[in-house]
Amino acid sequence: PALFDYRVWVIASDGDMMEGVGSEASSLAGHLRLGALNVLYDANHISIDGSTDLAFSEDVAARFAAYGWHVQTVEDGNDLDALHLAIEAAAAERTRPSFIRVHTVIGFGSPKKAGTAKAHGEPLGAEAARATKRALGWPEEAEFLIPDEAREAFAAARKRCEPHHAEWRRRHDEWAAAHPELAAELARRARLELPAGWQERLPVFPAGASLATRAASGKTINAIAPAIPELLGGSADLAESNQTTIEGGGDFEAATPAGRNMRYGVREHAMGAIMNGLALSGLRPFGGTFLIFSDYMRPSIRLAALMRQPVIYVFTHDSIFLGEDGPTHEPIEHLPALRAIPNLVVLRPADANETAAAWRVALERTDGPTALALTRQKLPTLAEAVERAATGVARGGYVLADAEGGTPQLLLLATGSEVHVTLAAQKLLAGEGIRARVVSLPSFELFARQPPEYRDSVLPPTVERRLALEAASPFGWDRWVGPSGLVHGIARFGESGKYEDLAVHFGFTAGNVAAMARKLL
Amino acid sequence: PALFDYRVWVIASDGDMMEGVGSEASSLAGHLRLGALNVLYDANHISIDGSTDLAFSEDVAARFAAYGWHVQTVEDGNDLDALHLAIEAAAAERTRPSFIRVHTVIGFGSPKKAGTAKAHGEPLGAEAARATKRALGWPEEAEFLIPDEAREAFAAARKRCEPHHAEWRRRHDEWAAAHPELAAELARRARLELPAGWQERLPVFPAGASLATRAASGKTINAIAPAIPELLGGSADLAESNQTTIEGGGDFEAATPAGRNMRYGVREHAMGAIMNGLALSGLRPFGGTFLIFSDYMRPSIRLAALMRQPVIYVFTHDSIFLGEDGPTHEPIEHLPALRAIPNLVVLRPADANETAAAWRVALERTDGPTALALTRQKLPTLAEAVERAATGVARGGYVLADAEGGTPQLLLLATGSEVHVTLAAQKLLAGEGIRARVVSLPSFELFARQPPEYRDSVLPPTVERRLALEAASPFGWDRWVGPSGLVHGIARFGESGKYEDLAVHFGFTAGNVAAMARKLL
Repeated sequence: PALFDYRVWVIASDGDMMEGVGSEASSLAGHLRLGALNVLYDANHISIDGSTDLAFSEDVAARFAAYGWHVQTVEDGNDLDALHLAIEAAAAERTRPSFIRVHTVIGFGSPKKAGTAKAHGEPLGAEAARATKRALGWPEEAEFLIPDEAREAFAAARKRCEPHHAEWRRRHDEWAAAHPELAAELARRARLELPAGWQERLPVFPAGASLATRAASGKTINAIAPAIPELLGGSADLAESNQTTIEGGGDFEAATPAGRNMRYGVREHAMGAIMNGLALSGLRPFGGTFLIFSDYMRPSIRLAALMRQPVIYVFTHDSIFLGEDGPTHEPIEHLPALRAIPNLVVLRPADANETAAAWRVALERTDGPTALALTRQKLPTLAEAVERAATGVARGGYVLADAEGGTPQLLLLATGSEVHVTLAAQKLLAGEGIRARVVSLPSFELFARQPPEYRDSVLPPTVERRLALEAASPFGWDRWVGPSGLVHGIARFGESGKYEDLAVHFGFTAGNVAAMARKLL
Repeated sequence: PALFDYRVWVIASDGDMMEGVGSEASSLAGHLRLGALNVLYDANHISIDGSTDLAFSEDVAARFAAYGWHVQTVEDGNDLDALHLAIEAAAAERTRPSFIRVHTVIGFGSPKKAGTAKAHGEPLGAEAARATKRALGWPEEAEFLIPDEAREAFAAARKRCEPHHAEWRRRHDEWAAAHPELAAELARRARLELPAGWQERLPVFPAGASLATRAASGKTINAIAPAIPELLGGSADLAESNQTTIEGGGDFEAATPAGRNMRYGVREHAMGAIMNGLALSGLRPFGGTFLIFSDYMRPSIRLAALMRQPVIYVFTHDSIFLGEDGPTHEPIEHLPALRAIPNLVVLRPADANETAAAWRVALERTDGPTALALTRQKLPTLAEAVERAATGVARGGYVLADAEGGTPQLLLLATGSEVHVTLAAQKLLAGEGIRARVVSLPSFELFARQPPEYRDSVLPPTVERRLALEAASPFGWDRWVGPSGLVHGIARFGESGKYEDLAVHFGFTAGNVAAMARKLL
């Protein structure tokens, strides 16, 4: 038998059956024929507002059959024999995920609250708890009682299982002795350690070439993927746009479970949730969608942050400069909304080398998720960043191009594609004798974590004239710019148009930035 | 026949079938037996990444049957007779929503791109467009051609329908003449005007009483609901917790379509989407859930803002002070994440009278949505706010309690429940001869919109020592506090505990605020 053949058991509620994320994930599980997945649906017919008759009368078992699942119903959740048989049948079914609808009574045994919403939304209370114990033949005064019968049953189970565990350990050790390299690899992954020397594969992009940061991300992924076998890619039906495909990695499908590219379909929320599960099982998953659709998966992003799981989000088409798709596809508030999540690192690299550095940060994190915001449009690879990006990005912000001829009169702060506009504005201003420093600030979180001396060296407190440029909601920028500064963002929805036209329309041009800078001084 | 008996037709794609929000809404539509709703599912088997075989192999028709829909399949979308018959059968079915799966070929007629993802993600291009026209027997050079045959068919349809329209107008006018008050009411609603004098019903809460802002919201709703018949309530299975029930309004269910309370089930995303539809049809919907679950419905909130629809979100349990449910239920980043959305007004009232004022703002908005953030825990009704709340909240921020004995040395800014902590801190500081002004700032957006003179009168630029207090991520507060100030928020996830204990643990006590204030000075 295989060394790893565990099954996954889920206990789900009526509410779980109503939430869309469960529908998305269950549809995909059926498609992928995940035979090791088993769901026990605790169908107690009650949610917080009362009977599910208020809002939920679909045939859940028929729905799961439509997803391609193996479906059973247990009419009475207290019929342990029926439950046992159903669980055995589910475990025996290895080519489809299994769904067992178990009809139960919420608050079973409580004379007044059984089968009512009161047993869901609030504690039973002392009196009702006593009445319930009485009805169930349980000692009324016991607060935390393990009956001998239960203790014996668990002890017997332990005795029964110990030889199985010993046998598994024996097989594992035998395997480890026969395959020392594989065993070391397994131990490495369990420690969430990356393979030695993987960083040497990170690409260095020559200055001058023109490529979108999403393209630089795709090249980075493919440069490092051969060295990091636990890296598992995927996209919510935008693999080509997100440039997330591990070339030659194959698709993860029912017939090809060693594939390294997940095909999540148009299911961003499930993608986020599934990546959490993949990370919890020791893989290093990344998944792509457009930045605008990060909204669909926020609850899962939050859980990754809360559970300290190193999931990586590849969010491309990261501004109005995606162009013609218009305001429904143009992110505005998404960068600040992501920056507000505790323990999420958001990185918006300015060029190809900053992108490679951002990937390094993301992979070296082991205690939380990372979101990469990447451009659709091409950007020149900056000579300034070739050597500086690696350490600069890791610190969240750095001086990309300092003022020439003395202390800067002005700081120009930007992220991503807008860094290029500030560089051009810096040149215009230099022509007029104005000394401006350009600071690339790919990550608020990483920069905020630096010692004050470093932050002050990048943003000298004495230079109060500061102009921040980002094609997104200006919300949250004041921290870096202060009351004597100016944030040029987009505090409204976007427009459809060619990205060069949108740049003029929204004032993201060197000329406009220089004009705003002059006014500030 | 009824004056309003229109049907709703939806054309949906494979992607729409994969997204969870569609599953949620379709399950509810089946439950509610929405016979006027009809979906044509354009099953072309292609999404952006390629064949839907990659990720989507469920039986969609069986799924909709499980939801309780009337389901048909048209094997060939170009078989107009079959399509016509299916549409007629769908229209005739008035007790269940109808689902017509129509098998089609994407890019039909294009010799090279028909049936491929290329026809989805990119334009055909000049050459392929010409080849397609050739294959379809269409004039190759025509750029925008309406053939005579089509022109005649549309002209005939117009001729056929004009008498129906005239007949409807006649019936409408007859009805309006017979029911002038109802006709005036209909016209009023079409103008999105509220009934004259509705504001007089807004409650004034006496100082000293102790109630949660969610409770004040519930009382406000029930005070005004009789005067505003287009107000339609609801909750995502948290009606009692959110206090969103219109008492005596009845539930909107299949058998009671005049009910004023929607039972959305545990389906926040669908609730947001459905409220957008309700608003677009002239109703004034509000819907409740916990603030933490606003994440589930962000795409719908964004669309309300983009479409300028006056949807109202009742987000209760608005901080860690909800207590024992712990970090999965305690919002942290949600206030800033909502504040970042353009054209959304976020209001976090500090007491009962600020809550009534917030409802007034929300209802008087006609060009965009409003989110109310309300407490679970009780709060005293402030003497200071009884008269000042109405105008103060409408301006987004105001001086709630000024320093006594001269110009303030310090500003204490807060929203919601934390306003009470700053008031207590103000008293402690006054005892030490420190003059602090307390500013209640329920809405960043409304305050930002005020003339600079007003803003400066509330936050005098000369008073640079400022302390902001909010039990949420501090992200975005720097705008009001500046570099000489301090923001005391929660830049991490919450903890489970009694709310009084959490207040101490996270430093939201008068003593700690006074200590921080002393340090600032």
